[in-house]
Amino acid sequence: MSPSGMECFVGPLGGVGHRVPTVPIGEGRITVADLGEFGLIAALAARMPQGPGTVIGIGDDAAVLAAPDSRVVATMDLLVEGRHFRRDWSGPVDIGGKAAAQSLADIAAMGAAPTALIVGLAVPSDLPVVWAEDLATGLAQECARAGASVAGGDIAEAATIVLAVTALGDLAGAAPVTRAGARPGDLVAVAGSLGHSAAGLALLRAGLAEPASLVAVHRWPRPPYDAGPEAARLGATSMIDISDGLGQDLGHVAAASGAGIDIESARLEPDQALRAAAAALGGLDPLDWVLAGGEDHALAVTFPPGTDLPERWVVIGQVDEGSGVRLDSRPSGRLSGWNHFR
Amino acid sequence: MSPSGMECFVGPLGGVGHRVPTVPIGEGRITVADLGEFGLIAALAARMPQGPGTVIGIGDDAAVLAAPDSRVVATMDLLVEGRHFRRDWSGPVDIGGKAAAQSLADIAAMGAAPTALIVGLAVPSDLPVVWAEDLATGLAQECARAGASVAGGDIAEAATIVLAVTALGDLAGAAPVTRAGARPGDLVAVAGSLGHSAAGLALLRAGLAEPASLVAVHRWPRPPYDAGPEAARLGATSMIDISDGLGQDLGHVAAASGAGIDIESARLEPDQALRAAAAALGGLDPLDWVLAGGEDHALAVTFPPGTDLPERWVVIGQVDEGSGVRLDSRPSGRLSGWNHFR
Repeated sequence: MSPSGMECFVGPLGGVGHRVPTVPIGEGRITVADLGEFGLIAALAARMPQGPGTVIGIGDDAAVLAAPDSRVVATMDLLVEGRHFRRDWSGPVDIGGKAAAQSLADIAAMGAAPTALIVGLAVPSDLPVVWAEDLATGLAQECARAGASVAGGDIAEAATIVLAVTALGDLAGAAPVTRAGARPGDLVAVAGSLGHSAAGLALLRAGLAEPASLVAVHRWPRPPYDAGPEAARLGATSMIDISDGLGQDLGHVAAASGAGIDIESARLEPDQALRAAAAALGGLDPLDWVLAGGEDHALAVTFPPGTDLPERWVVIGQVDEGSGVRLDSRPSGRLSGWNHFR
Repeated sequence: MSPSGMECFVGPLGGVGHRVPTVPIGEGRITVADLGEFGLIAALAARMPQGPGTVIGIGDDAAVLAAPDSRVVATMDLLVEGRHFRRDWSGPVDIGGKAAAQSLADIAAMGAAPTALIVGLAVPSDLPVVWAEDLATGLAQECARAGASVAGGDIAEAATIVLAVTALGDLAGAAPVTRAGARPGDLVAVAGSLGHSAAGLALLRAGLAEPASLVAVHRWPRPPYDAGPEAARLGATSMIDISDGLGQDLGHVAAASGAGIDIESARLEPDQALRAAAAALGGLDPLDWVLAGGEDHALAVTFPPGTDLPERWVVIGQVDEGSGVRLDSRPSGRLSGWNHFR
């Protein structure tokens, strides 16, 4: 019947403290069914402190958030267990952190500063409460890194875990940077890592744990949020969050802008960790992860020619009069990234 | 790996028109797997026209929406197949309409006007595209009724259908009406129907289709959105959307306000349709649906004593110095509503 959810949190206070006597001792054995809807919401809310921009947070029909710019930036990402994460490969703190990062990066990619998350969490009744609590911790930690907080949401029962994360953001007077403004002659630059998450996933699939830095990025990417507003200030003509792979996401920019993009492989030199992972996996070419791996949530931006870029921006190519994305002036199958439903 | 979703819509245009030649003829046989992520997004976007408050809609990393009040109201509701809807009991247009109504009503319950939805849709690969298209039609129709539009979202693959609907709204300068402001002496009033959805569900469970008006409300409730801002203008001291049942939701108001609420059964007379349904189901008491049935998404509001209420508001009780909700001055088990995870 009807959900209500986090917005309805006015139930028993104290979360896990409110165990019914029939529940076995031991944190890990308390399930969400034991705690019930309102007890679970209280337990999660306790791990997600309210941020300064939150006028009304968890506990009413809806949250009320400051939107000082008089415009609000909004996006949603879904994470489905078995598709976007595996509980045997990632712990709940990591999954919460990754879920938050994924949506918050989309806000940064418009040139905005993240302000809040609204989180929907569908879980099985037999899920241990500590798992959900750790997920909330991860959500809150990544929010804090981005300057945002969790302001509301909903919970529901489902056979497998589904996370729906809406992120909101504020443009602080800037014009939103879309995918459609790239012009021939513009520089193409990237802030953040490329290919690390894909390499980490390949390692996990092969049962390997090293290089650990790559596995860590796969489990919990750390997008460079402040690079988004910085790019807007620097005059970015277009911007996108690299979620599906550099080649595919730049393809969206090229298509939306009616331009071509040529990227230079020499500027995308895989780092030591990627080379080590490629060697460990039997001699793969690590450049493939850089070109087609998603989920690091780097930002790819086009800037007017001659823009003086701070050090973290790496110029990787140029916009031209053509169409689509080319590698060293040629079309390349190595640029294909992730697609759903295939 | 990474979702991207509606915010990434820059793929093949035209949706269903882009069939691959291997797909069997017949609308109903095209699946989301046939169409692919970007084709599906295009097909859905075509059914969800952009609203006037949408600065940037479907097609970028995030949407940008007008927030003229400099605050934004935000909420999310999850709908899980088999829990919140059944495909054999409700068609996709109804499910889309209901999903939208559920979240939009939470915006109205803060005293705000709905502006936009951000929709996450997790679906099986073999789902017919027409089902998803009809869902989008329902979402768009209910949005239009509320003065809002669908501005973005995400799609993903999942074994069962999960809908995550974030609604946003604008307060137009009004103070948000929370659950916490009810004061002893206030009137308790309701706008919208009570118990119709629960009666409709009971009819469906029994294999009955009449009274059809009740089944229709269960499939697609029609909350009185403009009653929310109207209540705020009339000086509402507290407000809640009835999603889990009148007794339970007024219990949230009582707890948050530190007050008691006494409702009078004589003011909650079940209407002719509810009486007919109760008779058809073997002599149930239809008042139980009115007291404990959720999902009609009526608004329950407390007003200062003596407030001159327009005709659609029905006074059903009064706030007092006590605690909890009472029926005719006594505690009653008939006031319990829906709970998750039990």
